Amino acid sequence: MTTLEMQGLAARAASRVLASASTKQKNSSLEAISQKLDEQRTDILSANALDMGNAKNAGIKQSLMDRLLLTDARIDGIIASLREVVMLNDPCGEFISMSERPNGLRIGQKRVPIGVIGIIFEARPNVTVDAAALCLKSGNAVILRGGKEAINSNMALVSVMRDALENSGLPRDCVALVSDTGRESANEMMRLRGYIDLLIPRGGIGLIRSVVENARVPVLETGAGNCHVYVDGSADLDMAAAIIENARCSRPSVCNSAETLLVHQAVAQKFLPKAKALLDEWNVEIRGDGNTRKVLGDCVVPATEADYETEFNDFILAVRVVEDLDEAVEHITKYGTGHSECIVTSDYFNAQRFLDEVDAAAVYVNASTRFTDGGEFGLGAEIGISTQKLHARGPMGLRELTSSKFVVYGDGQVRW
Amino acid sequence: MTTLEMQGLAARAASRVLASASTKQKNSSLEAISQKLDEQRTDILSANALDMGNAKNAGIKQSLMDRLLLTDARIDGIIASLREVVMLNDPCGEFISMSERPNGLRIGQKRVPIGVIGIIFEARPNVTVDAAALCLKSGNAVILRGGKEAINSNMALVSVMRDALENSGLPRDCVALVSDTGRESANEMMRLRGYIDLLIPRGGIGLIRSVVENARVPVLETGAGNCHVYVDGSADLDMAAAIIENARCSRPSVCNSAETLLVHQAVAQKFLPKAKALLDEWNVEIRGDGNTRKVLGDCVVPATEADYETEFNDFILAVRVVEDLDEAVEHITKYGTGHSECIVTSDYFNAQRFLDEVDAAAVYVNASTRFTDGGEFGLGAEIGISTQKLHARGPMGLRELTSSKFVVYGDGQVRW
Repeated sequence: MTTLEMQGLAARAASRVLASASTKQKNSSLEAISQKLDEQRTDILSANALDMGNAKNAGIKQSLMDRLLLTDARIDGIIASLREVVMLNDPCGEFISMSERPNGLRIGQKRVPIGVIGIIFEARPNVTVDAAALCLKSGNAVILRGGKEAINSNMALVSVMRDALENSGLPRDCVALVSDTGRESANEMMRLRGYIDLLIPRGGIGLIRSVVENARVPVLETGAGNCHVYVDGSADLDMAAAIIENARCSRPSVCNSAETLLVHQAVAQKFLPKAKALLDEWNVEIRGDGNTRKVLGDCVVPATEADYETEFNDFILAVRVVEDLDEAVEHITKYGTGHSECIVTSDYFNAQRFLDEVDAAAVYVNASTRFTDGGEFGLGAEIGISTQKLHARGPMGLRELTSSKFVVYGDGQVRW
Repeated sequence: MTTLEMQGLAARAASRVLASASTKQKNSSLEAISQKLDEQRTDILSANALDMGNAKNAGIKQSLMDRLLLTDARIDGIIASLREVVMLNDPCGEFISMSERPNGLRIGQKRVPIGVIGIIFEARPNVTVDAAALCLKSGNAVILRGGKEAINSNMALVSVMRDALENSGLPRDCVALVSDTGRESANEMMRLRGYIDLLIPRGGIGLIRSVVENARVPVLETGAGNCHVYVDGSADLDMAAAIIENARCSRPSVCNSAETLLVHQAVAQKFLPKAKALLDEWNVEIRGDGNTRKVLGDCVVPATEADYETEFNDFILAVRVVEDLDEAVEHITKYGTGHSECIVTSDYFNAQRFLDEVDAAAVYVNASTRFTDGGEFGLGAEIGISTQKLHARGPMGLRELTSSKFVVYGDGQVRW
């Protein structure tokens, strides 16, 4: 048996105990974790200092270093998030439906935990605790595999969580960390049938592709977001400019930011300079088609096919002038990743058509794509944003971490 | 481009039209199909006669021949099922939730079709029409791949459906048949990312294993059912005997039939002869552990480990006497496939514990496992019974053939 199989077996056993734990028990363990994180912050910060030192020596770039860093304030943030998870409703035990059949059988459909969830993620150590807390609250054991850059921080955080679980009456194996951060351990995890019921990759497109190619366990794909804002012929152009500025510039690296602006030809002349004025304040590089360049001039880099396919995650925006709504929908269908798509319009029928015809996790009329988020959508907290169509689509909260079972109460019914 | 990729592309295009078709349109196409099946029954029966002739020459066994056979009465049955699907509520467009957020955004979660569904199934030609009808009603295009034994029947049935679709105003490519029934076409179908959004294998354990190993598209596993009936110490023994007789004998080949009987030691002496009397009427072969043989004698074949692992799908029953409820749950956890599990008991607390601790798609108190079925559970019709935990678990009806999208109505909201 490999180390990972042994961890899987232990997680499976722990998940059985956790599945019948009361909400009170789960909450008190989450409280215990937050308390112990507070007490052990010196140890956690020294472990993180090790990671930061290694990262510096390895010449890792500043933005990644920043994601890796833990500070007292960030630990306070982690603790605050944990307390928010305590406040969320426990989805387990909720009955989705219950009815009596003509033969007297009473049949209900009850939410239950999934079992053991595997999460493969990259450098941010706060994800370690957030993800574990959401899994625990929804009654699932979790096997975490973070990036190698954060291994010391993650070992410290997971050790604190395991101790706190044990002290508060739940098995420490409810949370496990894969300490081997080589590629092989990730591949083994993707194939751990019988031990892992659901695998969630959180990271770049490379990780997600690798999981989709290699996984033999059920997977929830998250993240890839090539999102569009389409400015219709009837749009309020000030509103449209404010929306594209926000969707591109407020946090360019996240998956719900917009990568491409589509503009109806009838308003291109008037709208594009208005949008450019706002985008210029952020030094956004514009890559446009011929018609865009006709309006805005040579300061616009000519857009290639690749530009429309790319998630820039940066202050770069692809722009295209389209003939009409049909061409906009066609463009989005061709290049979009089914994440978040927006139309800015004053036309009722065009709004309805866009909402119906664009196939994405979230479709918007007159609002920034940046709202696609568990908190913003009222789910309380999120484990990721699903861009697949099965099980969950869009932001995933606690409910999306559950399965269901049919519960049947009889008094001797048989079926001949 | 391969033939299958071309079919995939055509299905994808058809699915876009179908996704925005009204319920009325979809129902009228289903009516058109049922009418055309009625008109073309001579052609369908001659195609089926070809399959039956080939099957006879190939020396295929009688039970399979029977599943393959179409008759006038069976075509009537197919038409009746189609009309039932017309009567079912259309799940698409239904809002799962809708609420206004503090910032004024109105956010709803709407059911939408999945897109293109692939179904790989074995010999029964009635599945061809049933499965296609459920996919159509839920707004999905479908690519069907049946077994080679039924290829002529399937070609005739699919040709009728495609003609009827076209005549009634929907694209004929909403339904497609993979005419190459070799293993390679099944493997290609499992890897058709970008064209197939969901693959449902309907068939034996070999097919399902192959799909799980090879698939690169999302899969809904169906079917495998190693189900148990546990007779508790406090059970009404007559009720228990009637339940095990029904669960084993009413239709031994189906996935919700019981394969193993577990009996609490305190009632083994009294219960086993009572059960045996009923099972003897069906000539059920009993394979029991030492304690079962102590009670029932040498007419009981000694049970091996393999017997507890096997789905007999036949008039064979494995029996084991257990110490208590814990040992019963442990046995089910070890050998069960998470399909349908039953406790017969008069003890309130044991009933609750069994329902909570047994991890299966359907858990029963005092009723036969044979009820696990879309019709019996009130879902109207079923495309299969999921034994996995994601997306759908247990009988799957029209709702389980849908995804969802978040629909967001704004008036200029941005998020900084």
